[in-house]
Amino acid sequence: MEEFDLIARVRARVQEGPGEPSVVLGIGDDAAVLAPEPGHDLVATTDTLVAGRHFPPGLEAEAVGHLALAVNLSDIAAMGASPRWLLLSLTLPEGDEAWLDGFLEGFLGLAGKHGCVLVGGNMASGPMSITVQVLGQVATGRAVTRGGARAGDRIAVTGVVGEAAAGLALEPDAPAELAQRLFRPEPRLAAGTALAAHARAMVDISDGLLADLGHLLDPAGLGGVLELQCLPVSDALATAIPEPERRWRLQLSGGGDYELLVVLPPDAFPAAEAACRQAGCDLTEIGRVRPEPGIECRRPDGRPFVVEDRGWDHFAGMGE
Amino acid sequence: MEEFDLIARVRARVQEGPGEPSVVLGIGDDAAVLAPEPGHDLVATTDTLVAGRHFPPGLEAEAVGHLALAVNLSDIAAMGASPRWLLLSLTLPEGDEAWLDGFLEGFLGLAGKHGCVLVGGNMASGPMSITVQVLGQVATGRAVTRGGARAGDRIAVTGVVGEAAAGLALEPDAPAELAQRLFRPEPRLAAGTALAAHARAMVDISDGLLADLGHLLDPAGLGGVLELQCLPVSDALATAIPEPERRWRLQLSGGGDYELLVVLPPDAFPAAEAACRQAGCDLTEIGRVRPEPGIECRRPDGRPFVVEDRGWDHFAGMGE
Repeated sequence: MEEFDLIARVRARVQEGPGEPSVVLGIGDDAAVLAPEPGHDLVATTDTLVAGRHFPPGLEAEAVGHLALAVNLSDIAAMGASPRWLLLSLTLPEGDEAWLDGFLEGFLGLAGKHGCVLVGGNMASGPMSITVQVLGQVATGRAVTRGGARAGDRIAVTGVVGEAAAGLALEPDAPAELAQRLFRPEPRLAAGTALAAHARAMVDISDGLLADLGHLLDPAGLGGVLELQCLPVSDALATAIPEPERRWRLQLSGGGDYELLVVLPPDAFPAAEAACRQAGCDLTEIGRVRPEPGIECRRPDGRPFVVEDRGWDHFAGMGE
Repeated sequence: MEEFDLIARVRARVQEGPGEPSVVLGIGDDAAVLAPEPGHDLVATTDTLVAGRHFPPGLEAEAVGHLALAVNLSDIAAMGASPRWLLLSLTLPEGDEAWLDGFLEGFLGLAGKHGCVLVGGNMASGPMSITVQVLGQVATGRAVTRGGARAGDRIAVTGVVGEAAAGLALEPDAPAELAQRLFRPEPRLAAGTALAAHARAMVDISDGLLADLGHLLDPAGLGGVLELQCLPVSDALATAIPEPERRWRLQLSGGGDYELLVVLPPDAFPAAEAACRQAGCDLTEIGRVRPEPGIECRRPDGRPFVVEDRGWDHFAGMGE
């Protein structure tokens, strides 16, 4: 199958959807033409998935399509913004119709769920690599950045953490719920916009809770304390990994949950939690910001818990 | 070298440049935050270069950086728009500092020349692949699309055509000017905005003159006639390829020139040519649009010249 045929296939699939007035000109010209809403800033992010590095080479096409978009939408969520328009650059070893159809099923399915539309892209032949760009909008001046935390602020997290890391650790025998979390994460877009009015700083947990908390605190020379018994755990995770120390390690160092990690002023937690619950997800206070650099993790009895490995290198080594 | 160190390196290079008020938040957060100008549409495009397919694997890093951005800026030029913000997704087999520095030299050098700024991106390890996204602006409703040609319209082209194809055909012994054209094309941004007020339709010549003219005429069921003696030729090309038939073939089927191919109302050529010349480049009328489908190429004596291969597959086979 030729590149042009594949592009026609993508175009036909996109045009099945409802028309979107903000798209002046979509797929098929030299560039897309879009009409941004007045009174808004534009938010732009891009992320690449490489087969064997960010997902196992045999992962089904539909999951790859979902994952490639989810990791990008999660970055938009972390800004408190709403995604609008997507560009997709797909490099494939060969023009495989069935694979492309499956990929589009996952990609366009998630796009439709969050009201964003594919407006352009590029196809090339080569080793499989998927780059997605998401353009979103946020009311002017209202984007939530990684900066802004202050000593005394509260640290909170949406949903539950550690499921993706446990899913990876237990591969290929992970329970379905954990595998689902690993390969089909749901970006916290509704929670992100709900939290935007309350948050001082926000980031999504892609690299791992400690690593991403470091992105919020390290540049300001701040640190924090985390209470391990407060880390939200799902039943599936508690059952799969009953040993607390192993579980904490996965929850702190494992990435890929795509929950939002948020820093709130000391008295803002109740309102933020209510807004978040309205958006369909839990918010849990897990610690607080301190003026001294470094992050201390406290066991339920108050003793420190030391984690050697702060970061998570996705699927490095898996298939490479 | 770790991914984070490479990102820090890119960030440091970008921050050497002057601050840009339209960038609310640049590299280093979950997403970039940009302030689009009121009264403008947003123009977005992306293109991927794969080593061995779009450029020879041994091409120097600085040329790869230039080329990766140039092919994207050319798409913005073809819309009559101005580029503003760039995202860069770089997948490299290993963190090679010297290669990255060379790449950034070419990439950021061309970006600075056209007043656009790198605001975000992504780095991953894997087979070398470079995806660039350009966001540009154009006055609301003023983007020039591929549609719009009518029978009787004139077909014109900026600059000269065929140099890149000749450079490729003569590799590795191509004269310096032709190799330069092949690996360091200059996107016609000033000409694009100058032509926007006059053009009915516009495209950049990436796939080849005939293939790209087909993009303007085929969907409307239109055709055209091209006068081969009118095709603009450089001295370097005329010297390197003295045989007219071979040269025509390269000019018609070879891509990679990144000139603009424009369709103008019958009486608009003089004004368009003057505007283009003010923008620093020649504009040459090469044919006209006809109501019958198909493109006829006429020799100087009026006989038809038949080209078997309408398209150009970049560097396919070169290193693969």
